[in-house]
Amino acid sequence: MAYELYYWPGIQGRGEFIRLAFEYSKTPYTDVARQPAGMKKMFSLMKRERVFAPPFLRSGKEVIFQTANILHYLGPRLGLAPKSEARRLRLHQLQLTITDWLVEVHDCHHPVGVMLYYEDQKPESKRRAASFTKERLPKFLRYFEGILRKEKQFSYVNLSLFQMMEGLDYAFPRAMAKVRAPALRANQERVKERLADYLASPRRIPFNTQGIFRHYPELDR
Amino acid sequence: MAYELYYWPGIQGRGEFIRLAFEYSKTPYTDVARQPAGMKKMFSLMKRERVFAPPFLRSGKEVIFQTANILHYLGPRLGLAPKSEARRLRLHQLQLTITDWLVEVHDCHHPVGVMLYYEDQKPESKRRAASFTKERLPKFLRYFEGILRKEKQFSYVNLSLFQMMEGLDYAFPRAMAKVRAPALRANQERVKERLADYLASPRRIPFNTQGIFRHYPELDR
Repeated sequence: MAYELYYWPGIQGRGEFIRLAFEYSKTPYTDVARQPAGMKKMFSLMKRERVFAPPFLRSGKEVIFQTANILHYLGPRLGLAPKSEARRLRLHQLQLTITDWLVEVHDCHHPVGVMLYYEDQKPESKRRAASFTKERLPKFLRYFEGILRKEKQFSYVNLSLFQMMEGLDYAFPRAMAKVRAPALRANQERVKERLADYLASPRRIPFNTQGIFRHYPELDR
Repeated sequence: MAYELYYWPGIQGRGEFIRLAFEYSKTPYTDVARQPAGMKKMFSLMKRERVFAPPFLRSGKEVIFQTANILHYLGPRLGLAPKSEARRLRLHQLQLTITDWLVEVHDCHHPVGVMLYYEDQKPESKRRAASFTKERLPKFLRYFEGILRKEKQFSYVNLSLFQMMEGLDYAFPRAMAKVRAPALRANQERVKERLADYLASPRRIPFNTQGIFRHYPELDR
């Protein structure tokens, strides 16, 4: 099975949650839009297969989009999720909650509209980011702390929680320095160690202010 | 199988997407939080089962949350989705795209933070709603027009698209009056007819300005 991942080439973004699953499980995949003529191929396939937005995955005849849906599909195939439906749904609902959390991170720098630049919505971003770091960030962290303490079986959700912590550390270093989340921190360290080769490779795109996690000091109280 | 739906009792909200699946398929269910002592039962189960937020479903031993995940589970059981994994994933990614769309509708009146009142974020809401009705609404409508023209098999996605159109008509009547979306309109009428009894019953909570779809004339350009 040759997996093809399609995602914007210059950012980690939502595609990174899929990359981590491939990299952690040492599954070969092609990151198509980062290959020569890859963007053209991506747009043409998007149109033909009625994909709403990247990331999407081609696996044999199937074209699958929505990050959490792709992980739901890949989980058991990559050894990153159990096979029973009930247990897969339990992981999936956690991943969907991470999806919601990620939207809230994104909206810290885009509260008014995705079609505008951050620079066009700075005052609104300041209010949104303050509300996020004060109320929503602790709520999500508390929730996933509880989950990690209870869930002992490693899955793609652990990889996504690693990515959330890495991204939040980059975007909101001051807010994150105040956080006490030992289970999330232990998971982050464990995954970082296992992914050391990948993280040091050029395949790992650095965080930047084009992605979902963005470091703007004025948004980090 | 006795299905128990748990959701806030005073609004349609995300719970309505589940109610529509039960009502359309004439499947018995209990809307627990609308029963005596139902809210207490809801909070207690949420805590015990580590549910991040309503709606959630109890079905036998399983407790399932995240609206799209619940529909993914119920789909084949209620005759509202095919049984093959590939086709279920194709429906699910559409439902997840409706989920994203719904978040953008919600954020029209809550661009700064879910913990604040609308009245505390009116100027930001005006900018957000203008960007939504001008750019995002047409994009989503165009996308799902294309999907409905291609997908001939009725599923829970048709019910959710009915609900989106009803909600958008309520919240943004002026913006929606300008919309040309014949396949979405035909689907809306077809579902409305089939659901006539339910829609006229007290089980259908009226739209109101506590829910996700809210009519504030100043946000409807």
